Amino acid sequence: MALMHEIPKGVKVLLPEVAAKKRWVEEQLLGVFTRWGFQEVVTPTFEFFDAIAPGLGSEWRDKTFTMIDRESGNLLVLRPDITPQIARFASTLLKDRPRPLRLCYASSVFRYVEPQAGRAREFFQAGVELLGLDSPEADAEMIAMAVEGLMAVGLDDFHLSVSDIDFFSGVLEELGVSAAVEVEIRQAVQRRDRSALEESSRREKLEARQTGLLLELPGLVGSGREVLDKVLPLVGTPRCRAALETLSRILKFVDAYGVSDHITVDLCEIRGFDYYTGMVFEGFTPHLGYEICGGGRYDRLLEKFGAPAPATGFAIDVERVLLALERQGDLALPSGADVLLIEFRSRKGEAVRVARNLRGCGLRVARDIIRRDLEGSVAYARTFQIPWAVILGGNGVSEGLAKVVEVARGVESSVEISRLAEFLQERMGRSSS
Amino acid sequence: MALMHEIPKGVKVLLPEVAAKKRWVEEQLLGVFTRWGFQEVVTPTFEFFDAIAPGLGSEWRDKTFTMIDRESGNLLVLRPDITPQIARFASTLLKDRPRPLRLCYASSVFRYVEPQAGRAREFFQAGVELLGLDSPEADAEMIAMAVEGLMAVGLDDFHLSVSDIDFFSGVLEELGVSAAVEVEIRQAVQRRDRSALEESSRREKLEARQTGLLLELPGLVGSGREVLDKVLPLVGTPRCRAALETLSRILKFVDAYGVSDHITVDLCEIRGFDYYTGMVFEGFTPHLGYEICGGGRYDRLLEKFGAPAPATGFAIDVERVLLALERQGDLALPSGADVLLIEFRSRKGEAVRVARNLRGCGLRVARDIIRRDLEGSVAYARTFQIPWAVILGGNGVSEGLAKVVEVARGVESSVEISRLAEFLQERMGRSSS
Repeated sequence: MALMHEIPKGVKVLLPEVAAKKRWVEEQLLGVFTRWGFQEVVTPTFEFFDAIAPGLGSEWRDKTFTMIDRESGNLLVLRPDITPQIARFASTLLKDRPRPLRLCYASSVFRYVEPQAGRAREFFQAGVELLGLDSPEADAEMIAMAVEGLMAVGLDDFHLSVSDIDFFSGVLEELGVSAAVEVEIRQAVQRRDRSALEESSRREKLEARQTGLLLELPGLVGSGREVLDKVLPLVGTPRCRAALETLSRILKFVDAYGVSDHITVDLCEIRGFDYYTGMVFEGFTPHLGYEICGGGRYDRLLEKFGAPAPATGFAIDVERVLLALERQGDLALPSGADVLLIEFRSRKGEAVRVARNLRGCGLRVARDIIRRDLEGSVAYARTFQIPWAVILGGNGVSEGLAKVVEVARGVESSVEISRLAEFLQERMGRSSS
Repeated sequence: MALMHEIPKGVKVLLPEVAAKKRWVEEQLLGVFTRWGFQEVVTPTFEFFDAIAPGLGSEWRDKTFTMIDRESGNLLVLRPDITPQIARFASTLLKDRPRPLRLCYASSVFRYVEPQAGRAREFFQAGVELLGLDSPEADAEMIAMAVEGLMAVGLDDFHLSVSDIDFFSGVLEELGVSAAVEVEIRQAVQRRDRSALEESSRREKLEARQTGLLLELPGLVGSGREVLDKVLPLVGTPRCRAALETLSRILKFVDAYGVSDHITVDLCEIRGFDYYTGMVFEGFTPHLGYEICGGGRYDRLLEKFGAPAPATGFAIDVERVLLALERQGDLALPSGADVLLIEFRSRKGEAVRVARNLRGCGLRVARDIIRRDLEGSVAYARTFQIPWAVILGGNGVSEGLAKVVEVARGVESSVEISRLAEFLQERMGRSSS
């Protein structure tokens, strides 16, 4: 019973104000996704652990919520990521549909992480998967859609950091170091720690050309293809060259989409899921210290489910977008009623007709069923930020007329009931313009 | 690995066609709810079992999905019902907000039941809770909103069976039988099994008046208040009389809402949650053998969470509504792209501009990035029921023109690129009207 008033760490109730903003952001994002021809799917909240394990990188295996299926004794897992679920059913249920498949979703996912600002144990993602295309144009489509999505929700300052996992793997190949040293170098690169890289180079007795490449990495950041031009002379392996060539073609298509202003090339941006195999990106805004979206190419994931196919995709973190919007300035969304309808008559027919008429015009109308005086009702409207109170009957309001109170200013008008919808729409249009 | 291609019993993937219909139904219902002044909330997918247990009837306690919180060792439960979650946070987080509270939701819930047609282990509900009002008018608002919701999704034939839990409790009180016999009678009433009721009456040596009331119950079904008039002379206790009086007032308000055509009074309709205390209703359509919605008054639930308040609400089962709509005739919703944009040029600028322009006009445009011939592309469009293919370049399409193929009929037109959006909108408007 001690737990009766508590909720588990890392999850929360979204109260009306936040829930309205969450729905609005999801609607904007799904609007962009569907206009680009993507179709929404809904995945199960839990699955057999074994069924999506092939898509869970080592980093996530220990960070899932699991339970035992009491019938079969199998381990169930709350979805920690939507991509492996989609990869699985694209390889099974949708195996015979022609490629490409363009799918999208807006779902909660669950991860057993230490909660902190912007990181919850249940959180909300809106994302897309483009399955069956290995072209750089497909990757450019992901980048362009992520930019359009973030613009559609009204973020005014953000950039996507684009990189390529395969380029970095190629660099490690060129260095020819042990797996342990690879991990060390990977971490140093993510930290952009030049002195740690120098130290590794000395200890591993790397050649001058190798050292040059390694120490160049933290500086491989820029607004476009000049970064690629800078690094190309330094790399030797076909793998690195091919990755840079692909990235260059992706950036050309991104240019064609006209979204280059939002792009940074940053070859140290090598975080993300274990399943990424090529281009990767993460989105940032100056308002937040962590990424608001991420995505990339994953050409080896679907084959784990029996139907090999190239694929690319991304996901936007809905709550982080809300946080960024909040810090950028307010995202004001009226989530409650527009009108509180108060009546002092015992015949309910007219109030019902008025409510139906106003709702038919798209107004949100709550009826004040409780018995209290007019002042109490208007105070209630004020607390819930309901902008208009409409009073029928009582207090000297004549037959055929309604008293309309603009709650914030306390201004009263007497309006013919037949003109009520028109009156309110006119005033609301005027006040919002 | 045997489980790799399976998903757990009772859950499923909603593929694009179904997911689109689900979203549409939820949007219509939330549209009705918000026009009635209700505000959406989002509850956590899992909670401490102890935190919502007070709202779980005995019937549900064994039918939940539970897991152990690995940090605290506490039992977690996947939400089996939204109402107790809302009752809890209304009594805690929202304790100080004035009443009434009008809240709504569209969420999945989880129950460990034996899956069958229309009954899954994860399913989708859209519902409302009206907290803080004990008036019959509030119950009538629930009934009127449920009717308006079912009409908004296009169900053309349905009725709500309205009853009152307290009336039946009053009847049991009048009979003065043991708890075991109460269970027996409750089941016989639900089955409308007159001979079982006669048998109980004989065995318990009930008085003539008691027997008369008991045997009348299965016949207490009708379209309105005449049912109440019929039973009123048979009941003796104030509890029964008060329940009938309240129900009569609710029906009067339902009349005022103009939805009486959809109402059946059925005093044997006594199923539903343990927490119901007064008016209850369930919705049915001739197309399905189980209820599509249900609701009722629950005046004793919030006090279990420390803040006593009367309350009423209902929930609509989204997938059952989809099933009913399917059986009623098709619910055709185009879920994919409107246009497949195919280009045979190496310069991508024009295709990007055309796509952006068409999307700006609200058209859903997928770009055919894959390299294949025109026939292959049009076949792809046909498979995915994309109604229009727009071809730029190649195949003798001149500069400034696009070839437009109406995929289903194979009809081709040559259209100026600057007039493309207008042309498609005109054709789509014409074909849909």
